[in-house]
Amino acid sequence: MVDVSSNGPWLDDAEQKSWRSYLLMKRTLETHLERHLQREFGLSGSDFEILVNLSESEAGRMRAFELSRSTQWEKSRLSHHLTRMEKRGLIRKEACDSRYPEIVITEEGLAAIKECAPAHAARVREFFVDVFGPERFAILGEVSDEVVGTIGKHCEDDCPLEARS
Amino acid sequence: MVDVSSNGPWLDDAEQKSWRSYLLMKRTLETHLERHLQREFGLSGSDFEILVNLSESEAGRMRAFELSRSTQWEKSRLSHHLTRMEKRGLIRKEACDSRYPEIVITEEGLAAIKECAPAHAARVREFFVDVFGPERFAILGEVSDEVVGTIGKHCEDDCPLEARS
Repeated sequence: MVDVSSNGPWLDDAEQKSWRSYLLMKRTLETHLERHLQREFGLSGSDFEILVNLSESEAGRMRAFELSRSTQWEKSRLSHHLTRMEKRGLIRKEACDSRYPEIVITEEGLAAIKECAPAHAARVREFFVDVFGPERFAILGEVSDEVVGTIGKHCEDDCPLEARS
Repeated sequence: MVDVSSNGPWLDDAEQKSWRSYLLMKRTLETHLERHLQREFGLSGSDFEILVNLSESEAGRMRAFELSRSTQWEKSRLSHHLTRMEKRGLIRKEACDSRYPEIVITEEGLAAIKECAPAHAARVREFFVDVFGPERFAILGEVSDEVVGTIGKHCEDDCPLEARS
């Protein structure tokens, strides 16, 4: 009904096709990786993301605002999700002198991420990295940095901190 | 704490770097586009996705299962979101003889998508398409199709229909 390719700032047909292909790929990969984590390890994509962040931090602990910045989640989404993860024993919150608690990965959380990480990495390799191949994958990395830089330069208010120039 | 690059199916350092760059880009672009839609037009990314699907359908109407397939959302997420959009007058549900209602875009929904689409397309162009440039963007489109095809070939159960071979 709405012709989104006829005038104005629209993408031309070839661009539109590539953009749609990208959107479908992004979603298909996400869905595939998340369903695999859920089915095989009982972890959601959100659980995985929090556990990866914490497990890679210096001491297995981060302030909530740091997690919020690095996941780019809204505060309320992060807060609700951390509460659910705490109930499941994957993380715990430790009060400290700031108004932001420290979020600490538990032994159980650490075991969970260690268990699923190799299988997850294998899927990323098989279905994404190896399909690109070295040359095209390196290009993707380069352009990705350029996109993040471009967005960061053009918007100061609505960008995640990492993307600001 | 967890070294995810030392052995097993892990990505090597260069691959890991590109993968992280891709993840940050994907999230930064999504966040940027969604905040722009929300701020300027009062639409969430999910609203936009539903409206685009409906507005591009033949008669501005789709069955819920078709929307579910094309958005790849879980049934419950789709159902809740459609209820919210109906309350805001952007869509309406029409009973039909199947157990799935038809979802119809309203005049108001059509006006909303027509109003925001040019500005959205301009952002996609400025912050994504033009940063890639024609050659690299064409490559992205090609590889995206290959990734979707590869996932579709390897998994029959947990893939969206579009991605199945």
